[in-house]
Order: sequence, then structure tokens, then C-alpha cells
Amino acid sequence: MRDTATLLIDCPDQRGIVAAVSEFLYRHGANIVHADQHQDAELKLFFMRVEWDMDGFTLPVDPSGGTDGFHAAFAEIATRFAMKVRLERSTRRPRLALFVSKYDHCLADLLYRWHAGELACDVVAVVGNHRDAEPLAQFHKVPFHAFAVDKNNKAAAETEQLALLRRERVDLVVLARYMQVLSPRFVAEYPQRIINVHHSFLPAFVGAKPYHQAFERGVKLIGATSHYVTEQLDDGPIIEQSTTRISHRDQLPELLAKGRELEKAVLSRAVRWHIESRILVYGKKTVIFD
Amino acid sequence: MRDTATLLIDCPDQRGIVAAVSEFLYRHGANIVHADQHQDAELKLFFMRVEWDMDGFTLPVDPSGGTDGFHAAFAEIATRFAMKVRLERSTRRPRLALFVSKYDHCLADLLYRWHAGELACDVVAVVGNHRDAEPLAQFHKVPFHAFAVDKNNKAAAETEQLALLRRERVDLVVLARYMQVLSPRFVAEYPQRIINVHHSFLPAFVGAKPYHQAFERGVKLIGATSHYVTEQLDDGPIIEQSTTRISHRDQLPELLAKGRELEKAVLSRAVRWHIESRILVYGKKTVIFD
Amino acid sequence: MRDTATLLIDCPDQRGIVAAVSEFLYRHGANIVHADQHQDAELKLFFMRVEWDMDGFTLPVDPSGGTDGFHAAFAEIATRFAMKVRLERSTRRPRLALFVSKYDHCLADLLYRWHAGELACDVVAVVGNHRDAEPLAQFHKVPFHAFAVDKNNKAAAETEQLALLRRERVDLVVLARYMQVLSPRFVAEYPQRIINVHHSFLPAFVGAKPYHQAFERGVKLIGATSHYVTEQLDDGPIIEQSTTRISHRDQLPELLAKGRELEKAVLSRAVRWHIESRILVYGKKTVIFD
Amino acid sequence: MRDTATLLIDCPDQRGIVAAVSEFLYRHGANIVHADQHQDAELKLFFMRVEWDMDGFTLPVDPSGGTDGFHAAFAEIATRFAMKVRLERSTRRPRLALFVSKYDHCLADLLYRWHAGELACDVVAVVGNHRDAEPLAQFHKVPFHAFAVDKNNKAAAETEQLALLRRERVDLVVLARYMQVLSPRFVAEYPQRIINVHHSFLPAFVGAKPYHQAFERGVKLIGATSHYVTEQLDDGPIIEQSTTRISHRDQLPELLAKGRELEKAVLSRAVRWHIESRILVYGKKTVIFD
Repeated sequence: MRDTATLLIDCPDQRGIVAAVSEFLYRHGANIVHADQHQDAELKLFFMRVEWDMDGFTLPVDPSGGTDGFHAAFAEIATRFAMKVRLERSTRRPRLALFVSKYDHCLADLLYRWHAGELACDVVAVVGNHRDAEPLAQFHKVPFHAFAVDKNNKAAAETEQLALLRRERVDLVVLARYMQVLSPRFVAEYPQRIINVHHSFLPAFVGAKPYHQAFERGVKLIGATSHYVTEQLDDGPIIEQSTTRISHRDQLPELLAKGRELEKAVLSRAVRWHIESRILVYGKKTVIFD
Repeated sequence: MRDTATLLIDCPDQRGIVAAVSEFLYRHGANIVHADQHQDAELKLFFMRVEWDMDGFTLPVDPSGGTDGFHAAFAEIATRFAMKVRLERSTRRPRLALFVSKYDHCLADLLYRWHAGELACDVVAVVGNHRDAEPLAQFHKVPFHAFAVDKNNKAAAETEQLALLRRERVDLVVLARYMQVLSPRFVAEYPQRIINVHHSFLPAFVGAKPYHQAFERGVKLIGATSHYVTEQLDDGPIIEQSTTRISHRDQLPELLAKGRELEKAVLSRAVRWHIESRILVYGKKTVIFD
Repeated sequence: MRDTATLLIDCPDQRGIVAAVSEFLYRHGANIVHADQHQDAELKLFFMRVEWDMDGFTLPVDPSGGTDGFHAAFAEIATRFAMKVRLERSTRRPRLALFVSKYDHCLADLLYRWHAGELACDVVAVVGNHRDAEPLAQFHKVPFHAFAVDKNNKAAAETEQLALLRRERVDLVVLARYMQVLSPRFVAEYPQRIINVHHSFLPAFVGAKPYHQAFERGVKLIGATSHYVTEQLDDGPIIEQSTTRISHRDQLPELLAKGRELEKAVLSRAVRWHIESRILVYGKKTVIFD
Repeated sequence: MRDTATLLIDCPDQRGIVAAVSEFLYRHGANIVHADQHQDAELKLFFMRVEWDMDGFTLPVDPSGGTDGFHAAFAEIATRFAMKVRLERSTRRPRLALFVSKYDHCLADLLYRWHAGELACDVVAVVGNHRDAEPLAQFHKVPFHAFAVDKNNKAAAETEQLALLRRERVDLVVLARYMQVLSPRFVAEYPQRIINVHHSFLPAFVGAKPYHQAFERGVKLIGATSHYVTEQLDDGPIIEQSTTRISHRDQLPELLAKGRELEKAVLSRAVRWHIESRILVYGKKTVIFD
């Protein structure tokens, strides 16, 4: 795997940003692999993602952000343009926990992709509120943790889950059809670091049983949405969406089957983009640097 | 143009329907061109569309439904299976009125398709609450009727519009981005005979300025929906929907431009399917016999 | 699982077929679950698929086609209309052998779908010319058979493979990215019973390394095709195809990754449709009764 | 319409290009509206498109490339990095000639889009080898030129057509379903300035009657391709492609109808991208800066 650094910038739009950043990188020997930028004309915001090869780069890059190295050298530019800056390095693989309930198609899909090398991360835990997915986790040599969650023990269960996540130094929680709503306390510990898949084209069919809602309404397409989890249910920043055609011939079982394909697609893309530092959140929206 | 008859059947599901109908048609010399059927397993309903060549058919077919001919001969079967029956004949071209406001892309698209022979109908009136579309109507040799509608004269304007529709014996009203909400009285006169295009993937973004709503929410796909108009705004039976991908690079003007493509597609398909008697409405849903 | 019978009919088009078939089924107590028919207007051919619940049906249904039961009773109609007839029963699950080389994404996808109940079949063997897929087969409790195939032993290896298929009474061979070309002798033993996935939108990019060919040509979409295998390479009747958008940003690895999604989709659909007796082949074309 | 300048760069990949270009633009007061770049990792090429507002820019921008102004000031950078440079200005609208035969759906679509403001160009001529499209051209107030072309007068007709194009100072020729093959002499006069639409997913079904070929082959998707015209038929750099699903129910007329939608879409996008200077050709491939 190539050793690259990735810089994500989010600041008010103004002249000279690209010139300053690219001159800085050039001066320190960066061989740029990918660069992309975006201006939100209405909100006057500027977003940039630039990735460069560490081979030949003359500054130390430590994503955890020490006071020397890249951050120190870049501080003047960051201050001048009032930038929010994030720095990642490809060699530091993010650590993932996958949460699942009974439906395991998204889990199986993510584990297979990980196994096949599509996801540059370490999956360190599978968390289930049922034990159905345990053999699948074992096949992929990932520890499985069962937490039977119900109304009475939910707070306690979350406390244990959070302890597990801390112990395993988890960077990203993926809700792979995990059917429990996380409490605000849980969400607050992992801001923009919990990805969920909702089985509808949000904001249509918020809440429970979206395929049933879709079937009742008689829509001609069904959808799925992956998004960051916020305190408000199904309302976080959308990362990816997809739809597929259905017809009157499709009864509920066909909707569910077609929906599974969408869910796998939108969730796995969201996870990959997060891992590759391609997502910038601003307000309720995301920029995806593909 | 081929002279065919089309029979649409809607009844409780039970054994023997297809046998009875196909034996009846065979006995009277029907050469079946297309036949399709659908069972709603949950609601125990049966739907059928069958189209046959009139060449060699031994019964008179009069869609307006006299007491002799097809209807008389078929009455026994219709009664036995408690059928709702609709009979159409391809040589009887439906008469359309197209309503438009300022945005004329759907109107231009429909008129072009009509002119090119894709829509087997007669467009007998273009109705606008602005005069922008008048030259386009004239180019296609369709009378243009302007009704400047505002809050104060809306009821009176609708009365005149309804008079026009009656005078022109209009079978189908198409709201081709007509930005006035029709009153319940108007809608009641043309049940399942008014088709609207809404510029969102319903039921998301009901009401005004759906592209603005979509932009605010940060969705990754935008959509459009064609549907029959009912008393409740944007809530009628959906005929067709389509979505297309957008990204953060797409600001509002790009959303509007991409949306126009969707609107043209879903509206023109809905109109064609209606004209070709391919749509069966039941409850809030539609069966599309394609 | 519901016990249903499915009848597939292929004959010259003429009046009265549907009447005869539906009257026959009604007379013997069939409760029709699905029925679909198709006429090829140009070639004057008629195709039909009808599926009915065995509950209440008064004739024995034996797909292997004894001389009594359904076949005997239906013989008069079949003869009258010069029908080719195929009869299947849902309780008789087809037996599958999956062939694989090194890339195991299609294999993993098929095995997962089978495990999840999407494919109503018995997977009785995984055959590999490499051992990479052995753990995956074992996890799904399917015997794995390795055949190291090279130019010198290919005929002998095929002989052994055919013996295995006979021993296991295999109904359908699925080439899940199996990179060996089967000999005409092999193909001849399983006419319309070997499904392959080709990683291009056929007939574009026949033969080896289609993604490389696509990359060289600078296409804006890549595709995948599932088809029945015939003697002529990549030329058999197409069952399913799909395409996805690529851009200049996609280099070869991205093409391969996007292509894997297509391959999984088109192959798994083809296998499911075959298992559910939804495919009728005529000449080089297929009718898919969905 | 906003007054912007657009710079397209094509050069060997090397460090410092973005820094040099962005510093240059910043120094001369450019307010960058859009910037995008691409590296072909395999061929070691660098491509860039940058667009800036002329308001506040301190250098004269003359696309025809005088020796002073932008070109003079930028010469040092262009030389240093061995750049091929193209400079455009939004206020200089390209002049288009649209060629058509009998099928006028692409022509009608392009003229409507132009009329609606989607295409920032001047359509200065419609050229037809039949007169069918004349009324449409007249409605849009574009001079119509008829050239009845046959085997014997083709060379003479092309000479006249070329004279017309020169007289009208045409920048871009669009073959909107123009069914005559242009001679190498004609093509050579407008390199990368003739856009054609081919009614198949190239490279499948090159040459005549592609929908018939597709129908014979039994494909499950049909496609359309827009491309620059080169000497070799249907072999020029592809600009855009699209496909749509067909089924056995679609006979040739349905293929043609579905194909028309694709043709309109891929041709109008190609024309818009060309007009907005979003296309860079290298070898047989294109970079589309969207």
C-alpha cells in the first residue's frame, strides 16, 4: 500500500487559497496524487482535498497532530485563511466496529470487501444484539460481541459497548442494519464517526418499516441512504443514496430483496469514502471528493 | 395505425378468470396482440389488460359502451366475476388539453412527441396562465388559451377553463408544469383524467420549491414524479418516477436543469401510458401494463 | 416453500393458445400464481410461462415427464399447437456446481445469496482450478474440488469434471469467473445449462482482458453480461446485462472494482432466473419472464 | 451571462504545475470559479481546467491568442512545463452548424435547449440532405440549407457545405442524426470540431443499422454514443455514452423509440460540454471536466 498523506480543508472562500496550499506542498517536495476542490457559491465556502505521495516529502506527517512537522509548518496558512484542517495518512488504518442485528447482508458484504482488500481498514469488532452473525464474524477472524439489548438494559448495554469501543480504539462505528436507535449520549461520543444505512430514499419514509411505507404509497422506485448519525433520527448528513425501479409485480418480499442490493451498495461506498478521507461535512450536507 | 381493442379488467381474484376471458375472445375471433395480468396477492385482486386486433373480430366494439356489441355479449362474464371493465379502441384518439405556466420544457417535449407520432392522441388545446408558450402552441397548430389566474379570479377562471374542456370534449388534462393548484371542484370533474408532474421524488419534498428543499437537505439524487391529481396536493396515485444523481458540485441551477430531464421523461411516459390504456388505478396505487 | 408447478411453452403463434391452456388448467383446479406470455411478432412465435399452486390441482406433476399425469393429459393441446413444453416443480430443487478460478467475488456472492435463501437450489459442488476458494466453500459446507488445469491435462481434467457432474446429478453449471474455456465436448453435455459471466457489455470486447480493452478505447460506461455458454466463445444467448458509468478518473483498478459489482449482479440474476424457470431460449435470444 | 475565462492545460505530469498556475492566476487577480485537474498515472500526463471571473483580472484575455495579454504573460510557465494550452472566454459564443437528415429528434432537442438558454452558443445554420427539418429551423429563426446528396454529387456537395461553414465562421459541426458519412477531406478541416451521435454503445454495433444489429443479437440494453468524428468510421474519441434496459417485449419500433431518448441525451451533453470547454482529447480518449 502506497504511503500517502491527505489534507482536507474547509474555510471561507477567498482568493489565493489554492496558490498558497499548492506552493506550500511544492516547496516541501509533495508529489500530488489527487487534488480536488469545491466552492459553495451561495455560502461562500471553500473545500479542498489534496493527497500526495510521502516519498520525497520533507515534513513529518503525524495525523494525531503534534506541534512540530506538518501542522507547525502549515499553521501560518491555516490561520491566514481561517481554515479547519484535517490531516490523514494512508498507513494509519482506521479501526472499525460493525454493529448488526438479524439481517446480515450488509455485514457479509462489508466483511467480504474488507477481506478482498477494497476497504483499507482494520475491522476490530462485530457487535450484535443477536448472535446470528457470529459464525460470519468468526470466519473473518473478527471478535464477535453479543449484547442482548432491551428497553430495561439499554443504557447499561450502551455503557458496555462504549467501553468496548474505547478499549479497541475504534475510529468508526458502522451500523450495518443495526435495528436499535442509539442514545444521544452514544452519538455524542462519535460525532461524524457513526455511519448508518436507512432503507429508504431519505427524507421519504423516515422511521420504522420504510419498505412497507413505500409499498403502501405505491412508489415506482425504492431507495436506500447512508448517512452520519446525529441525535435526530434519520436526519444526519447524507453520504450516499441509490434507487432502483420496482413495479406492481413486486410485492413486499421483492421490495426487501431489491432493497438489500441498494443497502449494500450505499453503505459500502460510504464506509470506503470515510476510510479514504473523501467526506467533508458542513451543516447538514456532505462534500464527497471522488 | 392498427385498429385494436383493449379491455381492462379489475376484479376480486378467483380461479377461471383468464380461461373465461380468453375463451370469450377466441370464440369471437380475437387475434390477441398483447395480454398481461397481475394478481395482488395481499389484497386478493386481479387485474388484466388484453389488446386484440379488430381484423376478424366478430363483435362491434364501441368504447362509449352501448347496450349491444361487446358489452352485451361480455355482460355475463363481467357479472359472474364482479368485474370493473373498461373498453378502448385505438381508432378513437383521446383528446388532450395541455396546461402550462412559464416553464415550457414539458410542453415542448409533449408537443414534439405528439408531432413525431409517439402519442396517439389529439392535442386540442394549450391552456396557459401566461402567454409565454403561445408561439410554441401556434407552431404545432394547437389553439392557445390564456387565463391570467390570480387569487381573486381563480374560481371564475376555472369555470371558464371547465367550459373550454367541455366544449372541446377533452378526455385528459395534462399539467405540464402548470403552477396553479386546481380546486377540488375542478379535480372532481376529471377523476383519474388529470396528470401532473411534481418535481421531486414523492413523497419526499411535497409542496412548493422541491428542488430548493432537496438542495437544503443535501440529497444525492433528485427525482420527479408523474401522478393523477386528487383533492389532496401531491398525494394522488403515482404513475411514474425517476431519479438522477447529483453531487455537491451541483448548485440550484444544475438541480433545475437535471430535474427538467426527469420531468420530461416521467410526464411523457405517463401521458403515453394513459393514452394507450396501460394504467389501472386501485386505491392509491397504479398497475402499469407495459 | 410453496409447492408450485411451472409450465413453459414455446410454439408458433396462433389463435386460441391462451384459451386452451387456461381452460385446461382451470378444469384441473389450478390456482394460477403468475402467468406471462410473449409474442414475437416478426418471427410469429408464442411463448408462455404459467405457474400455479399445487394445492387443489388434480393432476400429478412430475417434471421428469412420465407418461401419465400432466404430460398425458396435456398431450392433445401440445400436439394441436405444435408446442415445445417444459414442466418444473418448485419442490424439486435444481443441483448446482459453481466453477471458480482466483477471483472469488461472484462465488462469494452466490454462496451468500444461497445461504440467505435467495436461490432455491442445492449447491452440491464448488470446482476450482486453484485452491483459493476452498475456505469459502467449506464455510458454506459445500465440497470443494480442485482441478489444476493446464494445456496438457485439460482434456483429462474435463473428463474428471464431467464425471463429477454426473455423479452429483448436476442440473446447472455456473462459471463464476472461471477463466478456462470449456471444450465443445463439455458444452455439448450441458446445453443451456452452463451460465457464464463475461466482464464486458457483449458484443463489445469479446475475449480476453475486456476491462483493458475498454480502458484503451476510452468508453464512458463499462458493462457485464451473463449468458448461456455455447461452442462459440462469448456468443451464447444473453440472459442479463448491466452497465455503470466510469470517468477519466477511473484507472484500471477502479474499472475492475466497478466491474465486480456488475458481474455479481448480472450473474446472480441469471442464476436465479434459471432456477425459477424464467428463461426461454429461442435462437440466440432469451425471453425472461419476470 | 458571466464573463469568465477558461484555461485548458495538457502536459507531461511533474511537480509544481498547480502551484505555478494558481500563483500566476492569483498574482493577476483571478477569482477562480471552478478548477479541476486530472493525472493519467499510467501515461504520466497532467490535465487541468480552470475557469475564473474576468471581473478584477488584470490581464487582457483574447482567445484568438494575440502576442500580448494572457498568452504573453503565461508563455514562460507554458514553456517550462511543455504545456499545450487552450484559452476560451465565455463572452465569445461558439458558432454552430447542425446537420440533419430525416430523423429530427436530436435537432429539435438541441434547438429547444438552445432556445431555453442551456447552450451558450449561436446556431448559425441548419444543414439538411432532406427538407423535412426546414419548418423547425424556421421556427427557431435559423437559416436552413438543403443539399440533396447522392453518390455522384457528394464531393461537390461537401465543397459547398465547407464553403458555407467558412462563410458562417462555424466553430463546431454537430451531426444530429445526419446519415451521410463525411469524407476525410471534410473531417480534416474540423479536427475535434465535429460531433456525431451513433445509435449504439460503441464499440458494439459499428456501422449501419445498429438497432437492428442489437435486436438480432438479443442484447438486454441498448446504448448511444456521442464522439468526435475522425477519418475512421465510428472510431473517434468518445465523449458520452448512455444505455437503457430493453426486454423481449421490445420489438424494433420500441428499440428505436428508447434509443431516441439516449441519442438526445448523449448528443446534447456532448455539445454542451464542448461549448463550455469541458473536453480535452488525448489519443483516442477524452477527459470531461464536469
